[in-house]
Amino acid sequence: MNAPLREPQQDRSRATRERLLAATVELLATRGWAATTVARVAEEAGASRGAAQHHFPTREALFTAVIEQMYDTMTADVGAALADLPSGPDRIAAVVDQAIEIYTGTRFKAALQVWSAAASDETLGDVIRPLEAKLGRAAHKLVVAGLDPDGTRPNAHRLAQITLDLARGFGLADTLTDDSKRRAGVAAAWVEQLTAALG
Amino acid sequence: MNAPLREPQQDRSRATRERLLAATVELLATRGWAATTVARVAEEAGASRGAAQHHFPTREALFTAVIEQMYDTMTADVGAALADLPSGPDRIAAVVDQAIEIYTGTRFKAALQVWSAAASDETLGDVIRPLEAKLGRAAHKLVVAGLDPDGTRPNAHRLAQITLDLARGFGLADTLTDDSKRRAGVAAAWVEQLTAALG
Repeated sequence: MNAPLREPQQDRSRATRERLLAATVELLATRGWAATTVARVAEEAGASRGAAQHHFPTREALFTAVIEQMYDTMTADVGAALADLPSGPDRIAAVVDQAIEIYTGTRFKAALQVWSAAASDETLGDVIRPLEAKLGRAAHKLVVAGLDPDGTRPNAHRLAQITLDLARGFGLADTLTDDSKRRAGVAAAWVEQLTAALG
Repeated sequence: MNAPLREPQQDRSRATRERLLAATVELLATRGWAATTVARVAEEAGASRGAAQHHFPTREALFTAVIEQMYDTMTADVGAALADLPSGPDRIAAVVDQAIEIYTGTRFKAALQVWSAAASDETLGDVIRPLEAKLGRAAHKLVVAGLDPDGTRPNAHRLAQITLDLARGFGLADTLTDDSKRRAGVAAAWVEQLTAALG
């Protein structure tokens, strides 16, 4: 008779962990690296400090977990987007939109804070680099499939790289100001370029 | 007889200030935002803590001064690059190189740390936003002049924006790893695109 009792407790513990991770992403994106402490995360997640420290004994443990989850979710989102690409003439615009979405959302804003901190923190850099590379590969696969569904355009790989670097640049431009209007114009110009280049 | 004596002292004071600012840029770029304290800056600049505090009573004063100088220098460099653009077929590649240089140098790596911190610090955001806009305008002017020296290509403005967003994306990709090899290939593909688009 113990199993049914144990289950809900495990569920509660898992739910607390998820809330702590979600609060960390939100705090990183809106308040920045320095303000994202375990104590503040617990408060935002509505968890006790003890519960937070049970799940994440150190700030490093919290950040490692959140980075892994953040990148895994972004990578999974990219994979899901791949299945949703329209066919026909709207496909190129849709794939450019998807690429931009990866690098301008809340998760990327949070990732940018970690990224920036990792520039001078080797331990953090070692955690983030392989995850960043994995996300980069998934994003590249998505954009190549979007630009070249039949695998007949030899320039699709390079054009996909330009698209992703451009999207990263948009992400950076969006951190200090809401850049969505300007970005829409530049993105439209890039879709036009892509359409011409893909023939 | 006082003037010749006062002069060297003013010079020394100015030189100390410059060394403090240069050390701040270097520390920001290599050690990050949190590690760049007034005490550490003084140490790196070979100045006394008293001298550092004379020039910059608070961390905020130091950062405001360094951001202004950093952006002013980047903007001036961009202006100088404008005069140096080659004519003929190498012009497009040269202007893409210049755009990339703006966003991948040590100064930009330092700026990125400030930028990232400014995402959650309004005071800092208010300092950096107009300077960033000024640099953006100078960079845009450089790239438009490079792509369209005769002012005859109506698409030059949009292509310049794509070039600069792309360069910013390269800058971000270069913070965690040395991305210069990959970047060279993508930049070459973009130069090809530009050349075709400009006709």
